[in-house]
Amino acid sequence: MSIHRLFGGFYAFLLLAVTGMTLLGVSWCRAEEGMWTFDSPPLKQLQERYGFAPTQAWLDHVRLASVRFNDGGSGSFVSPHGLVVTNHHVALTQLQKVSSATRDYVKNGFYARTASEELKCPDLELNVLVSMEDVTKRVQGAVASGMGESDALKARKAEIAKIEKESTDKTGLRSDVITLYQGGEYWLYRYKKYTDIRLVFAPEQQIAFFGGDPDNFTYPRYDIDFALFRVYENGRPVDSKDYLKWNAPGAADGELVFVSGNPGSTSRLDTLAQIETQRDNTLSLTIKTLERRLQVAKDYAALGPEQARQATRQIFGIENSLKAYRGMYQGLRDASLISKKQKEEEAFRTLVASKPDRLKAYGNAWDSIAAAETKYREILKPFRFRSLGWSSLSLMALDIVQYVAEVRKPDGERLAGFHDSQLESLRFRLFSPAPVYREFEQAMLTGFLRLSLDELGPDDPFIQGVLGGHPPGEVAKEAMGATTLVDASFRKALVEGGESAVQTSTDPLIILARKVDPWRRQMIKTYEDQVESAETPAGEKIGEARFAAYGKSQYPDATFTLRLSFGAVRGYPMNGTQAPPKTTFYGLYDRAYSFDLKPPYNLPERYLERKTKLDLAVPLNFVNTCDIIGGNSGSPVINKQGELVGLIFDGNIESLVGDYVYNGESNRAVAVHSGAIIEVLRKLYDAGALADELVGN
Amino acid sequence: MSIHRLFGGFYAFLLLAVTGMTLLGVSWCRAEEGMWTFDSPPLKQLQERYGFAPTQAWLDHVRLASVRFNDGGSGSFVSPHGLVVTNHHVALTQLQKVSSATRDYVKNGFYARTASEELKCPDLELNVLVSMEDVTKRVQGAVASGMGESDALKARKAEIAKIEKESTDKTGLRSDVITLYQGGEYWLYRYKKYTDIRLVFAPEQQIAFFGGDPDNFTYPRYDIDFALFRVYENGRPVDSKDYLKWNAPGAADGELVFVSGNPGSTSRLDTLAQIETQRDNTLSLTIKTLERRLQVAKDYAALGPEQARQATRQIFGIENSLKAYRGMYQGLRDASLISKKQKEEEAFRTLVASKPDRLKAYGNAWDSIAAAETKYREILKPFRFRSLGWSSLSLMALDIVQYVAEVRKPDGERLAGFHDSQLESLRFRLFSPAPVYREFEQAMLTGFLRLSLDELGPDDPFIQGVLGGHPPGEVAKEAMGATTLVDASFRKALVEGGESAVQTSTDPLIILARKVDPWRRQMIKTYEDQVESAETPAGEKIGEARFAAYGKSQYPDATFTLRLSFGAVRGYPMNGTQAPPKTTFYGLYDRAYSFDLKPPYNLPERYLERKTKLDLAVPLNFVNTCDIIGGNSGSPVINKQGELVGLIFDGNIESLVGDYVYNGESNRAVAVHSGAIIEVLRKLYDAGALADELVGN
Repeated sequence: MSIHRLFGGFYAFLLLAVTGMTLLGVSWCRAEEGMWTFDSPPLKQLQERYGFAPTQAWLDHVRLASVRFNDGGSGSFVSPHGLVVTNHHVALTQLQKVSSATRDYVKNGFYARTASEELKCPDLELNVLVSMEDVTKRVQGAVASGMGESDALKARKAEIAKIEKESTDKTGLRSDVITLYQGGEYWLYRYKKYTDIRLVFAPEQQIAFFGGDPDNFTYPRYDIDFALFRVYENGRPVDSKDYLKWNAPGAADGELVFVSGNPGSTSRLDTLAQIETQRDNTLSLTIKTLERRLQVAKDYAALGPEQARQATRQIFGIENSLKAYRGMYQGLRDASLISKKQKEEEAFRTLVASKPDRLKAYGNAWDSIAAAETKYREILKPFRFRSLGWSSLSLMALDIVQYVAEVRKPDGERLAGFHDSQLESLRFRLFSPAPVYREFEQAMLTGFLRLSLDELGPDDPFIQGVLGGHPPGEVAKEAMGATTLVDASFRKALVEGGESAVQTSTDPLIILARKVDPWRRQMIKTYEDQVESAETPAGEKIGEARFAAYGKSQYPDATFTLRLSFGAVRGYPMNGTQAPPKTTFYGLYDRAYSFDLKPPYNLPERYLERKTKLDLAVPLNFVNTCDIIGGNSGSPVINKQGELVGLIFDGNIESLVGDYVYNGESNRAVAVHSGAIIEVLRKLYDAGALADELVGN
Repeated sequence: MSIHRLFGGFYAFLLLAVTGMTLLGVSWCRAEEGMWTFDSPPLKQLQERYGFAPTQAWLDHVRLASVRFNDGGSGSFVSPHGLVVTNHHVALTQLQKVSSATRDYVKNGFYARTASEELKCPDLELNVLVSMEDVTKRVQGAVASGMGESDALKARKAEIAKIEKESTDKTGLRSDVITLYQGGEYWLYRYKKYTDIRLVFAPEQQIAFFGGDPDNFTYPRYDIDFALFRVYENGRPVDSKDYLKWNAPGAADGELVFVSGNPGSTSRLDTLAQIETQRDNTLSLTIKTLERRLQVAKDYAALGPEQARQATRQIFGIENSLKAYRGMYQGLRDASLISKKQKEEEAFRTLVASKPDRLKAYGNAWDSIAAAETKYREILKPFRFRSLGWSSLSLMALDIVQYVAEVRKPDGERLAGFHDSQLESLRFRLFSPAPVYREFEQAMLTGFLRLSLDELGPDDPFIQGVLGGHPPGEVAKEAMGATTLVDASFRKALVEGGESAVQTSTDPLIILARKVDPWRRQMIKTYEDQVESAETPAGEKIGEARFAAYGKSQYPDATFTLRLSFGAVRGYPMNGTQAPPKTTFYGLYDRAYSFDLKPPYNLPERYLERKTKLDLAVPLNFVNTCDIIGGNSGSPVINKQGELVGLIFDGNIESLVGDYVYNGESNRAVAVHSGAIIEVLRKLYDAGALADELVGN
């Protein structure tokens, strides 16, 4: 994944917030906590609590039916003809890209009544996890004894790149080496990759995101947050034999359910020092950044209806992130959470210290991380702001500048994101024909540079070098006003022209990216030398200590790779009373009329006109105790028979501390009920044929 | 009011929780805070905030339309023919009393289609406040200089009794001297008293209290919590010219509304020492007592459906109290609340100390109260448990024993509750023909005596004297098993027989009450000598200091007398999102089906059978910022035109700290919408004639 993610700041329930800073602490699994890898599901716990343990065939089937949406989200095959279901808000990026000023599928929804009407997505890549291989020994073995920390880090990275390239060359599959237990294990995950994805159905955003930002991350909830795509290969719908059968009656109160999806990032195994960095440094900066970014996007949207349309997805994403980060921040400021973490870490360290050989091998790891965190806090601001941001086009420009330089190096020495095995996906994204809105990009880039100036100060060498004394707005206008990068074919030509084409380009945005590039490289190197090279071996040590102390009874932190969670459909104590296990269509209309249909509680026309067609007692959303987090959006909720009973689309407000702890009493995953989707397809959208395909008629 | 109230422990939203311990501290009125007396409404605030100040005619009309339900609640006249509306849960006591094993009006509801079908209530007294007179000087003037505290207290009480008796003799009206600003003012309130009250309509309890104990004190809410009575005088409906017009469209979001009703008790002006007593002593004991009492009532209810019916009202009341007290207790354990109180008290004391004459006159009052509180804490348990309790019949027995003794004394020397002006109401209650369930009374008395034994210990002289070494169950069985007091005419005969009849009675419950009587008297005397005689003059001092410092810009603590609150219809932040200003019938069905119609979310048959007749978008409940508390139940919500737009029936969970502080951001009063009542009367109950009488057709 691109190093740009390290900028932080754009958490969405669908989007990743990989800070790259997480390492290993320790925690104990309680109740239905856990985002388990498919190689190590909690069969014993399941058998004990529910008298049911999935077979290997069940696990394989569910894994192969599960789909990762690479721009941040999850989904699943739900018909033998390549139909994939996910959330509307996962589909939102593509919906926006296939829309225009005159055809607004975000607002109005979309339905392809025939195959020929299905709309090809410009840059959507879906992945299916087809194999998993433990490569821990190989990665860790690449470090020779006596190597310095910096060289060791390079050696590990080179080995990882090598494993990935070998696998790609051999299998043709997307091959990612992933780090689990923060270095305790390395695994090679191979993915079947799909890039011809066509939009089949999406409801109006207003019903998918009914209640808007206020109701986001809350429950009771009334959102019909789903969309349907069809996966093609060689111009035909893929033959998806591993698909989930649709169970429209859904799961009963108390019933065991599973969630198979790709949780993006958690920090539950972080050491206390790392958590304190988040509490005292990272989160407040991230929140401040998002607040500014939201203001910029909203100011742009206020210019007119077309500008508002262009900014829709960013505003959704930023508001979503802000609410999530504020919840996390509030959670971390709760002294009892920190004290709990403290006690866990102390107990773990005491256990390690009780055996002399372990004390010697692992004992200093926590202090190493604490020292590295001190350095990280010092470079946090320049690391975040000596770059480009907020404008996707400016980030593409930086990618292009780096791309042509990186591919000339040996694979193992390249920057993250530019290894051979990653280039195909990167090019797919860089050459996307999706529309680019020049004015919007300019507004966002202006905002980013202005915040960089504010945070770094006018004397910062990056600010002096890149802005050269000019106001941010002027610099962004010069770069964006005349750039040809809005044209995908120009981007492609530049990349194909190689380093010489890029170095001699007079495109003003490329010129800006060239100025930024050395600063960005320097900050990455500083981060690697001062933080990552110390935290990686320390993380490995704590990981080993953890296995030695507790065996493999725990699960790794989330890494946007496939995980299985389990739990039950269950309400929870809330607001002095109890939240119900599910909601109904009655509740949708109650909330709408309770606010006199004022936004964000307005309803699409068809929901008013055709109201009497609906059976209002049909369940709409429901909650369960499965352990999920951002990235799980669109994940199927599955019953014991391996059938789909719902779609994860959110967590409740109590779940926002889930980055650090899982609280079984009140942490809930919120899902769209399988029956609600069938009800609206048939009664409101005249999409009976699609409903038939889903339920298998 | 009867001293039995001092036992504490039975808070209900409709019932009083007068601890008798409240005295004067200081607070500043914020926003829409305030339970204002009708002699001193906040006209200036209203004019400034809402551009509307009620005229004297408006105030008089609203006051005369307001009705106090003496067993704990509020209501209002809503037709010129004596129709009075209140909450179902205020009516519950009477509903239970007019029901029997074969006619369960609590469960099934009641509707008198003709005047002859209206059901006379056995012991319901309603009061209308017809005049208010400041008697502060007279009460305070009764204390001669140089009097000891104990004599001063007696002199005050004698003067109050004298004022009340003079007024009763002169006007024939119920005349109560009430203490405001904890002694800062004394007022003579005269009430028109009605005792021929007939039940006209009540819905099924299940819809009035939909959601049961879990949803109690919460919002969003879906309760049709109302009942209608008709007031008779001389065998005919009273001519109620001051009645509130019914406004079925109700109040809009943000609209100014008023609440006119009888808030029972608050402790906002308590000194810190008094609040600390509540936090550290009183509340935990009260909660423990209620928990035990609930268990006893539930055990009895579990014996069979008829037993369950008999215990219905007690269980409702206890659960209601428990939830309220737990909320208050949690509120007091919040350090920020205590710290706020601390700061307010410090600021007030500093202000007093800044003027030498005030310092001299008032400065020691806080310390006097603190010293008295220390003593109170010591006697708390014997004060609570050296008595009878939980069983109404046993309390009636104690009342009878005390009655015949007290009436022989000069009026000014009697125990509270037995003054001449109070006897008529007391007799009305003691001679009530309402059914008494012997087995239930026995179970409750057993429970009370058992807890007394547990709390006081076997060596306590009261326990030794009253139980005489026998188990509580045996003592209660002996007293209840053969008592004739279940017969109202026997109670009447005893009272009319006077002291000799009572002293020679061989009725076992009277014998028990005679044993208890001296202990009760001793504890009241101890309380008066050690606590009340010190706190009363100290309260007066703080009250004077307060008027000197702030003028009469504040409102007195609630005293179950008529008050006017104002505020706006307004949602509030909740659960990570916003609570709507109102709910609708859609929400009722959502909550019911969200729990699969399982109790307490089941619906009366007619709500399922006739669902399609309803306009589900009609508002059902709504919230407003008016400042209310237990006792306000059934109060009319009134618009600027003086029309009824709703009925207060609850506060939200955030309002439970309202005993101590008003938090305008999230404290909300919850009301039944005027339109919902008309909707169900017409569409579900075929009660169009009644609806017509309400809306004036």
